Amino acid sequence: MKIKDDQKYDRLIQAAIALLATGGLANFSTTKVAKQAGIPQSNLYIYFKNKQALLDTVFQTTIHTQSVAVVAELDTAAPITIQLANSIKTLYRFSQEHPQIVATIQVLMADVQLKKHLHLKQDDHENQQIQTLLTDGLQAGILRSTDLNLIRYFLTRPVFNYAAGVQSGLYPDTAQGLTDLIQMIMGAILQPDVYQEWLS
Amino acid sequence: MKIKDDQKYDRLIQAAIALLATGGLANFSTTKVAKQAGIPQSNLYIYFKNKQALLDTVFQTTIHTQSVAVVAELDTAAPITIQLANSIKTLYRFSQEHPQIVATIQVLMADVQLKKHLHLKQDDHENQQIQTLLTDGLQAGILRSTDLNLIRYFLTRPVFNYAAGVQSGLYPDTAQGLTDLIQMIMGAILQPDVYQEWLS
Repeated sequence: MKIKDDQKYDRLIQAAIALLATGGLANFSTTKVAKQAGIPQSNLYIYFKNKQALLDTVFQTTIHTQSVAVVAELDTAAPITIQLANSIKTLYRFSQEHPQIVATIQVLMADVQLKKHLHLKQDDHENQQIQTLLTDGLQAGILRSTDLNLIRYFLTRPVFNYAAGVQSGLYPDTAQGLTDLIQMIMGAILQPDVYQEWLS
Repeated sequence: MKIKDDQKYDRLIQAAIALLATGGLANFSTTKVAKQAGIPQSNLYIYFKNKQALLDTVFQTTIHTQSVAVVAELDTAAPITIQLANSIKTLYRFSQEHPQIVATIQVLMADVQLKKHLHLKQDDHENQQIQTLLTDGLQAGILRSTDLNLIRYFLTRPVFNYAAGVQSGLYPDTAQGLTDLIQMIMGAILQPDVYQEWLS
């Protein structure tokens, strides 16, 4: 029986991310992942029973990595509005530093068929910490009283899109551009009076 | 030489949309499109020289169909803020009535590799009419003074996401949910003082 090897497992995930980010799902196969990772394809199935299992792990890994980055910069002693605005800045920097991770998240979340089968990591403490920040913001009347999934959508997807747009040259890479983006997202998620106060 | 047939051309595009919406790009092929349309695969190449050309036409067709729906409901005599809020409502209704078109747009726009090669229809008058509304809004100091691509992003993608979320059961299908969404988007795109005035 073949022994699992953490380093090979990581290499397979990194290869999958690189392939998804550059070629999308249309060109994705376990054959290509194994080749890119320099691991025989038959060995890939020791780690992942099939393509779907590999994609599931890639999804969990990328979402978790993003949550860890955001939580690492959170100052939980700061006011919630400041924490929210900072989380957008951190996520933007993360998106610039890890364009492949963000492209992979976007590709996986856009795929209708796939999305039904993807699951978040169990016990993702960092992800739960972000959820707690949002629940607190809702209870304090800081965030709009609406579905938290919608709040999370506005806090993340426009940031991914903006970072990808800067990378592709659609948007200029300026401090003003990032400020505009943060103000737009805050305008979307904060209660109008809290937003006015935060602006001033 | 085989003669082109408009009805077959349309059937191929509809088949491609149905396939992309249900299976994503991972399962997309000209073989499947031809089969679904009930047309021999060799005949598909009379209409589209390859898979990329077919995807390009599907992209132009879906974006154009969406623009036509939004523009049809625009009352150009109304204040710009009212037109913007109504365009969100119209786009939401369109997304509910044509989930496959919206899923296809989302799938195509998320694919990194593909996005580089997709082009909008030339002389898309309805799309230009929306662009004019936004340019006017910018010049009148109604919209935030930022990149119009970013404004368009906020006006469309959260609506697609919300409609898909309602369809999948992530969001409840309530009038309040749609009102929340419209207020969030307006909070994102309008100048803060214009937003306050629009709210009251």
